[in-house]
Amino acid sequence: MESLRFILPQSEIPGHWYNVAADLPNPPPPPLGPDGKPVNPEQMGAIFPAAILEQEMSSERWIPIPQEVREIYRLWRPSPLVRAARLEAMLGTPAKIYYKYEGVSPAGSHKPNTAVPQAYYNRQAGIRRLTTETGAGQWGCSLALAGQMFGIDVRVYMVKVSYEQKPYRRSMMRAWGAEVFASPSEMTQTGRDALAREPNHPGSLGLAISEAVEEAASRADTNYALGSVLNHVALHQTIIGQEAKKQFEMAGDWPDAVFAPCGGGSSFAGMAFPFYADNAAGGHKGKMVQLVAVEPSSCPSLTKGQYAYDFGDSSGFTPMMKMYTLGHNFTPPSIHAGGLRYHGASPLVSQLYHEGLIEVVAVPQLATFEAGVMFARAEGVIPAPESCHAIRAAIDEALRCKQTGEARTLLFNLTGHGHFDMSSYDRYFAGELEDFEYPREAIQESLRHLPDLA
Amino acid sequence: MESLRFILPQSEIPGHWYNVAADLPNPPPPPLGPDGKPVNPEQMGAIFPAAILEQEMSSERWIPIPQEVREIYRLWRPSPLVRAARLEAMLGTPAKIYYKYEGVSPAGSHKPNTAVPQAYYNRQAGIRRLTTETGAGQWGCSLALAGQMFGIDVRVYMVKVSYEQKPYRRSMMRAWGAEVFASPSEMTQTGRDALAREPNHPGSLGLAISEAVEEAASRADTNYALGSVLNHVALHQTIIGQEAKKQFEMAGDWPDAVFAPCGGGSSFAGMAFPFYADNAAGGHKGKMVQLVAVEPSSCPSLTKGQYAYDFGDSSGFTPMMKMYTLGHNFTPPSIHAGGLRYHGASPLVSQLYHEGLIEVVAVPQLATFEAGVMFARAEGVIPAPESCHAIRAAIDEALRCKQTGEARTLLFNLTGHGHFDMSSYDRYFAGELEDFEYPREAIQESLRHLPDLA
Repeated sequence: MESLRFILPQSEIPGHWYNVAADLPNPPPPPLGPDGKPVNPEQMGAIFPAAILEQEMSSERWIPIPQEVREIYRLWRPSPLVRAARLEAMLGTPAKIYYKYEGVSPAGSHKPNTAVPQAYYNRQAGIRRLTTETGAGQWGCSLALAGQMFGIDVRVYMVKVSYEQKPYRRSMMRAWGAEVFASPSEMTQTGRDALAREPNHPGSLGLAISEAVEEAASRADTNYALGSVLNHVALHQTIIGQEAKKQFEMAGDWPDAVFAPCGGGSSFAGMAFPFYADNAAGGHKGKMVQLVAVEPSSCPSLTKGQYAYDFGDSSGFTPMMKMYTLGHNFTPPSIHAGGLRYHGASPLVSQLYHEGLIEVVAVPQLATFEAGVMFARAEGVIPAPESCHAIRAAIDEALRCKQTGEARTLLFNLTGHGHFDMSSYDRYFAGELEDFEYPREAIQESLRHLPDLA
Repeated sequence: MESLRFILPQSEIPGHWYNVAADLPNPPPPPLGPDGKPVNPEQMGAIFPAAILEQEMSSERWIPIPQEVREIYRLWRPSPLVRAARLEAMLGTPAKIYYKYEGVSPAGSHKPNTAVPQAYYNRQAGIRRLTTETGAGQWGCSLALAGQMFGIDVRVYMVKVSYEQKPYRRSMMRAWGAEVFASPSEMTQTGRDALAREPNHPGSLGLAISEAVEEAASRADTNYALGSVLNHVALHQTIIGQEAKKQFEMAGDWPDAVFAPCGGGSSFAGMAFPFYADNAAGGHKGKMVQLVAVEPSSCPSLTKGQYAYDFGDSSGFTPMMKMYTLGHNFTPPSIHAGGLRYHGASPLVSQLYHEGLIEVVAVPQLATFEAGVMFARAEGVIPAPESCHAIRAAIDEALRCKQTGEARTLLFNLTGHGHFDMSSYDRYFAGELEDFEYPREAIQESLRHLPDLA
C-alpha cells in the first residue's frame, strides 16, 4: 500500500529559520516613525525584546532556532505532508495534489510556530507578561499555549463581537491559563474612550491592537506580541516550507506550484519563502516553483490595494510599513475567514509581489466554502475558512490541468482545522453566505487617508 | 534532541485485527434472544451484514483488515505514540508516561477505526443506507465520515438534548453529508410514541438506539451500525494497541501499565486487548502488563454493576448480552463525558474483568477535569472529557510512583480532543460541575429489572 502521509522523524525538525530578506533583489524599505524617518530599534524596545527586533531587521539568511523552541515544536512537529489522492480522484485530474497540514498543533493552526519563539525570547529578556489582540481567536489561543509553555502570563484583547460569537476559542485560551477580555474594554484609555463614544461598540482588530499595545507600552514587565505581518513572524513560519521540502524529497516528488492563504501574510510566507530561496538561486534542479498567494476577493489588499507606506493598526499607533494596503481605516466585510480580514499584507510578501516574484489570486467566499466541503468529503479533514482559500486555488489549478492534460504537482498550506468554525459551515449550508466585492470607489476613498509622507 | 513522538510509516499499518475471543480462558457466553435461547446470525441479518456477524461470533485470533479499509485508515493512521515528558516533569515523577493520540482522526476520536470497516462491509453487502444513534456526537460524526468514504447515506438519530446543546457536532455530520434528526423524532413509531407521551421529551441514548434499529429493521436497503459494546467493534479498535506495541519497540521501551477510559468498552478493548494477547501467552519477554479500565464513578457498571444477562438498549429491542450492567433502565447522571454514559460494559471486557484478567478503577468527574487541564497545560492537547478519565488514572499512578520511587512505564489512550467539549471546560472553570455517586439502593432498584431468564 502506497504511503500518502510523509512524516519526518523529530530529528529532522529544522535547526534554522530561513530569512527571505537575504535573497531579495532590493533591500526591504525600513519602517518609518511618525516623523517619516526610519524607526530605530530603541523606539520599539518598549514592546518587543531585543532578540525579536534583531530578527525583524536581520539580513542573515539562516537564523538558528533555539533548542528550547525546538523542544516545544516537537510536541506536534514535524507536521505531516499528505498526498490528497482521494481529492485527485474526485476531481479526475492528472495533477498530483499535496497538502501540508498545520492543524495538528494543539491550537489547531500554524500560529504557534511563531507564538512559541515569541514567548521564548520574551521570557529570555525577563518579561513575565504578554498582551495581544485576537479576532477569531486562533492567534490568541496560540499565544496562550506558548505563554503557558514558558511561564508567561498572557492577556488577550478579543474583538467583542468574536468574544460573544466564538465562546469556545475563549474557553480554549482559558484552559491554557490566559486572561481574555472583550475589546473595547475598561482596561485601557483607548478602550474607555471607545466605550464612551459608543457604549455598544462591537470592537475591531485595529482597536484591539491599540489596547494591547497601550498596555504593553505602559508597563515595564509587559511586552506585546503580534501574530502576522511583521518580518520576524514570517521568519518563524518558514519552518513549514522547510519541512515540506524535506518531505517532498522523501516522497521523491517536487511541487510545480505552491498555494497558501494570504491575509497578513504569515502562512503564505511560511510555506512559500523556502521555495523562493531555490527560485532566487536559479531553481530546484533548475526548476522554478510557481508561488501563489490566495486572498479573499472581499479584502483584496494585494490585487486591489496600493503599494505604499501605511500604519499597521487602524488608529495609527504603529510605525508605518511599506506594503500593499487598502488603507488603515478600511473595514473589511464580515467574511468568515476572520484571519484574512486585514487591510494590508506583510511588507516582505508585498515586496516580492511588487517585484514580480510571486503571484496573487483573489477568490470569492462561496467558492472557498464549496472547495472546503469537497476537500472534507474527499480527505476527511474539515478545513478552517482561511485554509479554504488555498484549497480553492489548488482545486482550480487541478481542474485547469484536467482540461490541458498537464500532470503538475500542486502543494497547498492547510493552515488549520475548522472545528471552531462550524457555525460558518452552518451558514454556508443554509445558503446564508454571500460573496462581497468592494466597489473600487470605496477602496479609493479609503486609500485617500494613507499617511502623508511629503 | 530526543524524539518524543514515535510515528510508524504507513507501511506498518497493521494488516490484521486481533480477536481476544481466541485467547479467553472460557468461551464467551452467547447473546440470547427474547426466548432465552442463543440468537442465530439470521435473526441479526435484518440489521447487520454477514461479514460483521461472522466477526461478532468469530474465535479466529487474527482477522485480516481489507485493503479498502486500510486505504481509508491511512488518511490519518498510524496515530502517534507520544512521550509526555513535560507532564512527567510537572508531576516530578520517576515514572515514564506515554500516550497514544487517537484525536488525529478527522472526526477527532478513535471511533472511525470501527466506523470505516462497518461502512465498508455494509457497502460490500449492497447496503446503501445506514442508521445509527449518537449522544454527544462523536460516533455520529465518525459514521458520517465513513459513510461518505464509501458512498453510503447515513441517518443519525441524535439525542435531542445534545442536538440542541452541541450544534457543532451536528454541523460536522452535515459537512460529511449525513442527515441528522433530533430523537425522539417523528420518523419512527418509537419516536412518535415517545413524543405522544411527552411532547418535550429530551431524548436518551436508549431511545435513539431504538429509533435507529426500528428504521433499519423495516427497510431492506438499510442497516444499523453501533459504535461500541459489541465484539466486532472491540475487534476493529485493536488497531490502536497493535500500533502502540510496534511504537514501543521503536522507542526501545515497554509499558508496565496501560490505562483507557471505559464506557461501552471499545477504547479500552482497542488499547488493552493486544497487550492482553501477550499476557495470555505468558507475558512480553516474560513481563505481564497491568491493564486498567477507567470508568466514571457516576456510571460504575464494572465496579458496582452485576455480571448478568441484560439488554443493550433501554427498551429491550436488542438481544440480551452477558455483561456487567447497572440495569438497562438505569439513567446515568448528565456527566460531561457523554461517551461513558452507558448502563453496561462490552461483554468481552466484562468477561476479562470477571475472570480477574484486567483491573478497573472508577474516578469522579471533578478529578478528571483537573487531570485534563494539567495535561493541556503540560502537553498542549486539550483532551475530551472521556479521555480525561484515563489521564486521571495515569497521573494517580505516576504520583504513587513518585512516593515509592518506582520508575514504571505508563501508557494511556488519549481517545480524542476536546474541541467540541469546551462548554464542559467552561462549566468546570466556573465551578459548576459536581461529583455524583449513585446511592447503592438506586443501583439495586435498577438491577431488579434485569430480564428474567428462569
